[in-house]
Amino acid sequence: MGFEKFLEMKRKTKGMINIDPIQTGGILTPAARKMLEEWGDGYSVCDFCKGRLDEIRTPPIYEFVHEVLPEFIGAEVVRITCGAREAKFMVIHSLAKPGDWIIADSNAHYTTYVAAERTGARVREVETTGYPEFRVVEEAYEDAIREIRARGERVALLLLTWPDGNYGNLPDAKKVAKIAEENDIPFLLNAAYAIGRMPVSMKKIGADFIVGSGHKSMAACAPVGVLGMKREWENVVLRTSERFKNKEVEMLGCTVRGAPIITLMASFPAVAERVKHWEEQVEKARWFSGEMERLGIKQLGEKPHRHDLMQFESERLYEISKHRKEGGFFLYKELKKRGIWGIKPGVTRRFKLSTFAASREELKLVLRAFEEILSKG
Amino acid sequence: MGFEKFLEMKRKTKGMINIDPIQTGGILTPAARKMLEEWGDGYSVCDFCKGRLDEIRTPPIYEFVHEVLPEFIGAEVVRITCGAREAKFMVIHSLAKPGDWIIADSNAHYTTYVAAERTGARVREVETTGYPEFRVVEEAYEDAIREIRARGERVALLLLTWPDGNYGNLPDAKKVAKIAEENDIPFLLNAAYAIGRMPVSMKKIGADFIVGSGHKSMAACAPVGVLGMKREWENVVLRTSERFKNKEVEMLGCTVRGAPIITLMASFPAVAERVKHWEEQVEKARWFSGEMERLGIKQLGEKPHRHDLMQFESERLYEISKHRKEGGFFLYKELKKRGIWGIKPGVTRRFKLSTFAASREELKLVLRAFEEILSKG
Repeated sequence: MGFEKFLEMKRKTKGMINIDPIQTGGILTPAARKMLEEWGDGYSVCDFCKGRLDEIRTPPIYEFVHEVLPEFIGAEVVRITCGAREAKFMVIHSLAKPGDWIIADSNAHYTTYVAAERTGARVREVETTGYPEFRVVEEAYEDAIREIRARGERVALLLLTWPDGNYGNLPDAKKVAKIAEENDIPFLLNAAYAIGRMPVSMKKIGADFIVGSGHKSMAACAPVGVLGMKREWENVVLRTSERFKNKEVEMLGCTVRGAPIITLMASFPAVAERVKHWEEQVEKARWFSGEMERLGIKQLGEKPHRHDLMQFESERLYEISKHRKEGGFFLYKELKKRGIWGIKPGVTRRFKLSTFAASREELKLVLRAFEEILSKG
Repeated sequence: MGFEKFLEMKRKTKGMINIDPIQTGGILTPAARKMLEEWGDGYSVCDFCKGRLDEIRTPPIYEFVHEVLPEFIGAEVVRITCGAREAKFMVIHSLAKPGDWIIADSNAHYTTYVAAERTGARVREVETTGYPEFRVVEEAYEDAIREIRARGERVALLLLTWPDGNYGNLPDAKKVAKIAEENDIPFLLNAAYAIGRMPVSMKKIGADFIVGSGHKSMAACAPVGVLGMKREWENVVLRTSERFKNKEVEMLGCTVRGAPIITLMASFPAVAERVKHWEEQVEKARWFSGEMERLGIKQLGEKPHRHDLMQFESERLYEISKHRKEGGFFLYKELKKRGIWGIKPGVTRRFKLSTFAASREELKLVLRAFEEILSKG
């Protein structure tokens, strides 16, 4: 029948040391993996649904969404979405009219721009300090607001990526929250690389909205995200249908059923625990960064670093790539050969990685690999 | 820590005879279930991604999306979405401006209305013949178009639910396609209960768009859907971002990764095969319907029926419920006691079911259960 290949799909990266920034926080816990068989069927979680996903009591989605998650992320109202990007779109689509402005940090994820574009909103970028730290200049949000308002145009939302996915920088979110409040503009914190890795409280930061990603940082199967907000936004973003009174328009009724929501819940006890050990993750990242610098590979972004996601720069690796027949792919191949996964194929001069899932012992192997690759030249 | 319940989630309906219309087509095949452990991690399918989900070659998503699915559903262009509702929203959001009209059958799924509402479009319903068959009057699309255009307003889309989720009726989709073409209005076929159960060809029907549901009818984990279209709509619905040239705006870049897309692919060989045996499913449904009528339980919707989803009516069960302490819940409880799952709790006078997943032997047990419940009174 020609479809055999769909029966034989194997993951080729199994067992490798994983330093891929988009993957290290989304590896299932053993408890979550065990749930997959039981809950894999299409509408499995809907056995006892009375009309809305977040109100299902068996399995305990209601408790998870309305009690556990609000406490965990410091939000007053929480919903499950198909991902952080979908959550951002829900908010932007609810708050912005075509032509309105979203002010975002220039380290923002591409989906921030695309979500705005889908709504017809425009994005005004707030600059960073540029090379080598690329720190967001929080005060520049103020300038951007003034500039847009001076033209008689409307700012619908401030958005900050915390941390960003390029450098793993953690800007001063409270500062942006204060600017938002003083200017009476809602503020969304994109915490896709924070929620599930490190302690986060929307309330303490003072944001209006927060988004997280199950598959990026909460040890869940894709696609799943969380959206938290202050109660005052409930009627705006979670407004219900005129005709179907219990269906939320921006959710299109319901969002995630099946494995993604179940693994999000089943991983949660371990995720809540790992967040308490975040300082150890930061120490591990700093140690790794220091060792890389000792090899002459420079860490970009904030220093000392405060997140496991880092970008590195190496002119030497770039030079080597020029003399290799695989060109830029040589680094990816050399690492793969050594059982190390997650450096983007083709990059050498600048590359990102995450130390979140690997142990120090494994990271020592990564460091040794870089050392060998550099010395072999 | 109080989170034990998230580690102990068990599906309580395991092993029961399943006649729940939203569940019978979404039960994983053994091949798909086997894939879950391997592919459960967050961004598992993205190991070899070069920037866009549908272009991933390992696992073979590219081939599935660009070769296998277009052939299977008779579409020129296909994408994977988070579900049929998300696919409908993508199309409506691309084609309709606020205030525009969507003309839809009055058997349409609630998400058709909600997707329109999210865009600010209005829905003009096309009537059915009403009780007891509730057949869509295809010609009435023509009247609706004339009526709206006479007021100088714009019809952005015709939408037909094929079959609908209330009665399992299969209207004459070609007739609606012809009306759409004559009036130069795009036509979307909601085939969430068709694709994966029965043979469907968007091309043969003459629709512009078709949407299907992985978790509803393609033996896949939720959330996942398919969107097929004529090539002429590619630049409209799949327009790419101005800034990120390879990212599709309505997809927000990428949609479904992880278990839902993997199970959709792994189940596909079996799904492609089961579609060939659709006539046996129809015969089984008709036989079951006949036996129910013999018990005095009336089948609503088209007769003879052409789909496994059916609605039944019983004044007698309703009468019995009045004398039972559980009231309307008695039917649900009596069936559950007998290992039969899927009748909505609380309904007795009218209830829906699907014969898709149950064998004739199992359906005989269902019939015997109804017989006992009626005779016990």
